[in-house]
Amino acid sequence: MHKRLFIPGPVEVRPEVLEKMATPMIGHRSKDASALQRRISDNLRKVFFTKSEILLSTTSGSGLMEGAIRCGTLKKAAVFSVGAFGKRWYEMAKFNNVSADIFEYEMGKAVDPSDVEKALATGEYDLVAVTHNETSTGVMNPVEEIGEVIKKYPDVVYIVDMVSSAAGSKVEVDKCGIDICITSSQKCLGLPPGLAVCTFSEKALKRAEQVPNRGYYLDLLQLYKYIQKKDYQYPSTPSLSHMFALDYELDYILNEEGLENRFSRHKEMAEVVRNWAREHFELYSDENHLSNTVTNIKNTRNIDVSALNKALGERGFQISNGYGSLKDKTFRIAHMADCQVKDIKDLLKNIDEILEF
Amino acid sequence: MHKRLFIPGPVEVRPEVLEKMATPMIGHRSKDASALQRRISDNLRKVFFTKSEILLSTTSGSGLMEGAIRCGTLKKAAVFSVGAFGKRWYEMAKFNNVSADIFEYEMGKAVDPSDVEKALATGEYDLVAVTHNETSTGVMNPVEEIGEVIKKYPDVVYIVDMVSSAAGSKVEVDKCGIDICITSSQKCLGLPPGLAVCTFSEKALKRAEQVPNRGYYLDLLQLYKYIQKKDYQYPSTPSLSHMFALDYELDYILNEEGLENRFSRHKEMAEVVRNWAREHFELYSDENHLSNTVTNIKNTRNIDVSALNKALGERGFQISNGYGSLKDKTFRIAHMADCQVKDIKDLLKNIDEILEF
Repeated sequence: MHKRLFIPGPVEVRPEVLEKMATPMIGHRSKDASALQRRISDNLRKVFFTKSEILLSTTSGSGLMEGAIRCGTLKKAAVFSVGAFGKRWYEMAKFNNVSADIFEYEMGKAVDPSDVEKALATGEYDLVAVTHNETSTGVMNPVEEIGEVIKKYPDVVYIVDMVSSAAGSKVEVDKCGIDICITSSQKCLGLPPGLAVCTFSEKALKRAEQVPNRGYYLDLLQLYKYIQKKDYQYPSTPSLSHMFALDYELDYILNEEGLENRFSRHKEMAEVVRNWAREHFELYSDENHLSNTVTNIKNTRNIDVSALNKALGERGFQISNGYGSLKDKTFRIAHMADCQVKDIKDLLKNIDEILEF
Repeated sequence: MHKRLFIPGPVEVRPEVLEKMATPMIGHRSKDASALQRRISDNLRKVFFTKSEILLSTTSGSGLMEGAIRCGTLKKAAVFSVGAFGKRWYEMAKFNNVSADIFEYEMGKAVDPSDVEKALATGEYDLVAVTHNETSTGVMNPVEEIGEVIKKYPDVVYIVDMVSSAAGSKVEVDKCGIDICITSSQKCLGLPPGLAVCTFSEKALKRAEQVPNRGYYLDLLQLYKYIQKKDYQYPSTPSLSHMFALDYELDYILNEEGLENRFSRHKEMAEVVRNWAREHFELYSDENHLSNTVTNIKNTRNIDVSALNKALGERGFQISNGYGSLKDKTFRIAHMADCQVKDIKDLLKNIDEILEF
């Protein structure tokens, strides 16, 4: 039996979108491919509220994160980490010989913008990397407030991992001063995994031009130059199946559901899960910085999370255990993409029945 | 109208395989995902004739090529190039600060194994990179003979780009002594683009352990260690849609068509195209090293290649112009994947009609 996914990616994909994944192939050097990829970029600009260029990459979000920190850092990167995906930024820098420091927070807490201010005041850093939505802890960082701090330092490039929130939670990239904002297909965009996208500002472009040793496949500057020259075609053969599906879904998001409705629906789903969690368990994360796309629930009743998930599986649902060291101490319910409030209520009703609430 | 693709990737994909691309999602940390990815690896070992581990990467072939040359070179790489994709190896090395020399051949010619011998005799190199099938020129390099030379140098890692030939032309990876052999989904494997795979030998593993600065997303050693520890699950969310399709297609290749039949069919299709080309035009490439998967035809009649392709498009076919500087001087017909001899004959009949042969 198929299990409906309430895990923080891959998400449940609408049948109409899955069908687009089965579109017959076209040449990736054709005019049709150019038009497809240009249209996707134009529509993604609306989702990100940006005038920057959009880059598409046949990788997971991690691929573009690595490209961003590598091509964006000339002096030293300051990574502000509130969990596993924050740490990943730092590892990516280290594994590429990119100079970086990590500023870590207690799990469940958010980045304090005044710490960013203190770090930047040293003059040591020319890049700040932040996770918007940390799925390992269920925390959403204040990327707008952090952006206000960074605006005082015009030489600092600001890169944000919006992998698990873009198209589900409103962040206005240009207003926040974000230079590279990254997401991937299998979260709030509601597609299968396999494609990552990012914004790429003029400032990021100028920085990358100064950085040597940017690599090849993940070099954002190479992608940028190539699509300018070749009318939105990419240096390597891209995942056209994902392009067909993304094109279809973006039209749905912008012209059928509407972006603001989509953001509201995500908030509403989050509220339903939070209220349920407050009633039966506790929320793990800082109440002021709760994620709109995934809720991390403290296992205060010491339930057997695997057994719960197994029982849910028999009813056609799947949720997530806690991440890493939080395994069994928390469990997570994602409310992302095209999942509806009624689906969330259906899931919770089934959990209630299993746990005999 | 859909155009059947006779270009050197993306290839025409069977409807049954496209349908698998639309499979509903499963969790990438589930037992089902482990089983799926383990089964794919086991079956790819048969396609590559190897006992080495198989690594899967959500990138195009270029992603794994970059990972291979970066994690395989400690001293200096010797790149033997017969065209655009050979040069790409060299660029990848340079863009990652990996020391490398390039040995280039006249277009249409193949690598001479005695040149490899000469280069290795200097003791300067600890890696050799070769393109098996150069789609830009239609040449197939003698990777087995080159392997015989390399076997005399036990410290040299041998990496081969089989992007446009694996599963279409027989190369026994272990017999040739190839340490990392790379292919991607959208060529002879008959899938849409978006997934790359490679073999990873014990020697390559030992080498990578010595190489610092291997990056993150494309680091083959990280992929290797992760799948050993996590039962064939990958560090980042992989393209599950491609996994479903590849799993299905590998079963077809191994258990329905049969590998040897598949190789024979590719040879037969190549012969049909070559004979046609010899009759009406000339072959571009060295007769001793003709590709079994793509034929590069010298435009001796000075036909308008774009006009031909446009006319073919109206009949539901697409072929390729010459690559880069060969544009209009040659044109290319690919005979890859699940394309049948009758499809090739159908294409040629239509070209005959258009060109009034």
